[in-house]
Amino acid sequence: MAPAQIDLNSDLGEGFGQWTLGDDDALLDVVTSANVACGFHASDATIMRRVCARAVQSGVAIGAQVGYRDLPGFGRRFIDVEPEALTADVVYQLGALEAFARIAGDRVRYVKPHGALYNRIVHDERQANAVVDAVAAFDPALALLGMAGSAIERAAAEAGLRFVREAFVDRGYRADGTLVPRTEPGALLSDESEIADRAVRMVTDGVVVTVDGGEVTIEADSLCVHGDTPGAVAMAVSVRGALAAAGIGVEPFA
Amino acid sequence: MAPAQIDLNSDLGEGFGQWTLGDDDALLDVVTSANVACGFHASDATIMRRVCARAVQSGVAIGAQVGYRDLPGFGRRFIDVEPEALTADVVYQLGALEAFARIAGDRVRYVKPHGALYNRIVHDERQANAVVDAVAAFDPALALLGMAGSAIERAAAEAGLRFVREAFVDRGYRADGTLVPRTEPGALLSDESEIADRAVRMVTDGVVVTVDGGEVTIEADSLCVHGDTPGAVAMAVSVRGALAAAGIGVEPFA
Amino acid sequence: MAPAQIDLNSDLGEGFGQWTLGDDDALLDVVTSANVACGFHASDATIMRRVCARAVQSGVAIGAQVGYRDLPGFGRRFIDVEPEALTADVVYQLGALEAFARIAGDRVRYVKPHGALYNRIVHDERQANAVVDAVAAFDPALALLGMAGSAIERAAAEAGLRFVREAFVDRGYRADGTLVPRTEPGALLSDESEIADRAVRMVTDGVVVTVDGGEVTIEADSLCVHGDTPGAVAMAVSVRGALAAAGIGVEPFA
Amino acid sequence: MAPAQIDLNSDLGEGFGQWTLGDDDALLDVVTSANVACGFHASDATIMRRVCARAVQSGVAIGAQVGYRDLPGFGRRFIDVEPEALTADVVYQLGALEAFARIAGDRVRYVKPHGALYNRIVHDERQANAVVDAVAAFDPALALLGMAGSAIERAAAEAGLRFVREAFVDRGYRADGTLVPRTEPGALLSDESEIADRAVRMVTDGVVVTVDGGEVTIEADSLCVHGDTPGAVAMAVSVRGALAAAGIGVEPFA
Repeated sequence: MAPAQIDLNSDLGEGFGQWTLGDDDALLDVVTSANVACGFHASDATIMRRVCARAVQSGVAIGAQVGYRDLPGFGRRFIDVEPEALTADVVYQLGALEAFARIAGDRVRYVKPHGALYNRIVHDERQANAVVDAVAAFDPALALLGMAGSAIERAAAEAGLRFVREAFVDRGYRADGTLVPRTEPGALLSDESEIADRAVRMVTDGVVVTVDGGEVTIEADSLCVHGDTPGAVAMAVSVRGALAAAGIGVEPFA
Repeated sequence: MAPAQIDLNSDLGEGFGQWTLGDDDALLDVVTSANVACGFHASDATIMRRVCARAVQSGVAIGAQVGYRDLPGFGRRFIDVEPEALTADVVYQLGALEAFARIAGDRVRYVKPHGALYNRIVHDERQANAVVDAVAAFDPALALLGMAGSAIERAAAEAGLRFVREAFVDRGYRADGTLVPRTEPGALLSDESEIADRAVRMVTDGVVVTVDGGEVTIEADSLCVHGDTPGAVAMAVSVRGALAAAGIGVEPFA
Repeated sequence: MAPAQIDLNSDLGEGFGQWTLGDDDALLDVVTSANVACGFHASDATIMRRVCARAVQSGVAIGAQVGYRDLPGFGRRFIDVEPEALTADVVYQLGALEAFARIAGDRVRYVKPHGALYNRIVHDERQANAVVDAVAAFDPALALLGMAGSAIERAAAEAGLRFVREAFVDRGYRADGTLVPRTEPGALLSDESEIADRAVRMVTDGVVVTVDGGEVTIEADSLCVHGDTPGAVAMAVSVRGALAAAGIGVEPFA
Repeated sequence: MAPAQIDLNSDLGEGFGQWTLGDDDALLDVVTSANVACGFHASDATIMRRVCARAVQSGVAIGAQVGYRDLPGFGRRFIDVEPEALTADVVYQLGALEAFARIAGDRVRYVKPHGALYNRIVHDERQANAVVDAVAAFDPALALLGMAGSAIERAAAEAGLRFVREAFVDRGYRADGTLVPRTEPGALLSDESEIADRAVRMVTDGVVVTVDGGEVTIEADSLCVHGDTPGAVAMAVSVRGALAAAGIGVEPFA
């Protein structure tokens, strides 16, 4: 039995000052959960205000895309931050975004770590616990969105936080369910219809075809579509269309 | 009749990363309202978390010391920010501090603009309105702390926000009730007992001796003691002691 | 008699980290002088290194696009920096760019202030002198590129620095030779062939048609083409083509 | 035979904007080489200008204290910067400091990486090579100051750069000549006369007493005295006095 519905999440609000990245408005018409950058690795107050207002208008759930404090590196470089400082940095970002979510008439519903932080807390327990500590202190009702089988999933479970597993519609998977590293062939898919088919099978069958031609089980509560590549919007539209055609509803998990 | 009590406010949390400024812990034992910097012109998440926790322990009210986004200039340089961007920047800072205040078991009680922003909104109506818009949008129950007779006082009144007038115990006043500019003689007092006496007269008689020897009426709901100068703590202790000796209670206005 | 040649300058290297702005490579095939941002309001070390290397390959002169320290505002907001601090900030930017120019086999040839700083030093003598002090201290052989009739032109003359006057091919002019403010109609032209014609007349006749239909004398050693708008490259190509068709050589002034 | 002389180096210019750290002026009367922070992890243009001018007046050699771009972390947190970006970041810092050194009448003489970068390039060959690439590209006549036996020493040797080995007068050493980690007992010495004695023996005998009571050979061309601790100046004065009493001259290595 296929689930009746799935969530589509995407990174949004990733411009900074005069600079833009991705088409926030177009994506907000397609996705159901917006991972809004909070000003540490991307975004600023003006962008956050606008994206939150637009998300609420569109019925899109607002999530906090928290990251390392590294605008020049876009949060894509591991920083060996002490856990206490990382906890405080995440709380700061959550509070800032919450202000804009509330002004827009809603609240922050979940947290999705970004970039190098996302990758680090798949295996680094100290930083994973630091992120969980921040969420638990700020609002234990918030969900954490991340990779199944990760250190952050375990830390969330221990702290009693809801953890939401995501799958990537355009990333290659290995036989053990992990992602093909970006430095290897097959890491990134680009064929729109193949990607849309994968998205449907992830939901209906709970499997994905691996890079070596087999299949692996995927349990996903949310599908991630990328927002910062050329063709990102078209791909998201195509995925959403294929899900609808397969009778799968698209709704926020939060 | 003298009022039964007065508030003592001071700037706190004005370090940044490895750098310190002022003695937060010592001042928190003396003042009743802490203007906590929010990371735009000073402070960071770790400092904010610590100061908020310590303030709540000491029964000191937490206020948001909001400023221009200018760490290299410590918020002391006017920046010609567009009103919409300024409103968003202030909301961002309020949200970030609110997160730490809540984690510490309290909330932000008031807003005190800092440095060049403080001085600017004495007369600049566009920026004054931008700050008021931020406070009203974030939480209309917050008070604004500032100069009597200023554009920000008028803007707060129009928006229905509570405005709290402050006087400066160690600054020279002119006959019209405005401050002697820092570039002129008599701008800054340094004699501890003179300052303590002035503080008492501000509260009991509602007057201050001006730089030319006269007296001018001062209506103050809060007295500002500086935190970042050598001898700041000693001066604050001396002011508090003199108020107590004069039978004046010291309590947060908020 | 028309001059044999003219310089075409444009702003380049205005991305930051992951963010891009304008098409640096395409513009470097068209212009003769590159105003390279130096990291204070835009750009970073990686971008500066790449743009300098590419400019030297293309025979394009490298100029320092110095600005206020304000990445979130892209240097477009006036900051009331003290003159001594502004001088130091400009020297810092000049040194950083010089390092990349030298590594690429050339040197910085001129200085063009950016955005709000550019506009400010048209009339603010303190900041104009501060910029001139920086250039004179760093290398008095550098030229300053700016508006004719400005405070910075006068300050440069007093200090014995070469001043190079520029005209804007796509901006409206008033009868007194000043630019139509961006908030007024006629501030910005968009018709490619009209712009190209204006560029040619600026060089051959030394005049430009004003917003009210008259003509005003323009003495320009360099024409500025914008780099950050859609169609920027096409407009620059069109201007260069029209100049060539009119027998006007295009060469760096430096 | 003891060497006739030794160099004393210390970190300087480590304030930022309104914030100060250490007593630059006092240290410039004691040390012979100043590792001047370049604005990425500490310092700013105003501070760099002042410290360079004062160093030249005092006959102190100017070195570039380069670090990760991380003001909030003071450069003390490892950042996984790609080698190309790190090379560009180091060149940028070198160019900025060179401008101030030249304005003061001298030039940058050497490079000393700071904090987490210093520690990382003891063993990380990619980042060590990135730093060496920057120095070689900027000016191959510059010396690199660092730990003997490190990856950066090997990389410097391969590139034909001069490498200058330093010893730490107030740090504990292990039997293999490496430093006692800061998390272990004996990492940091505080007794002034013991430290002064160690400094003398490092130079006269080329040995240091280890944390377990033995002795280990130390070959040092420069002794590092810390500048940011209470008592830093007194310790540096004491070390210099002890060296003088032992007939050891104190001169810049550069």
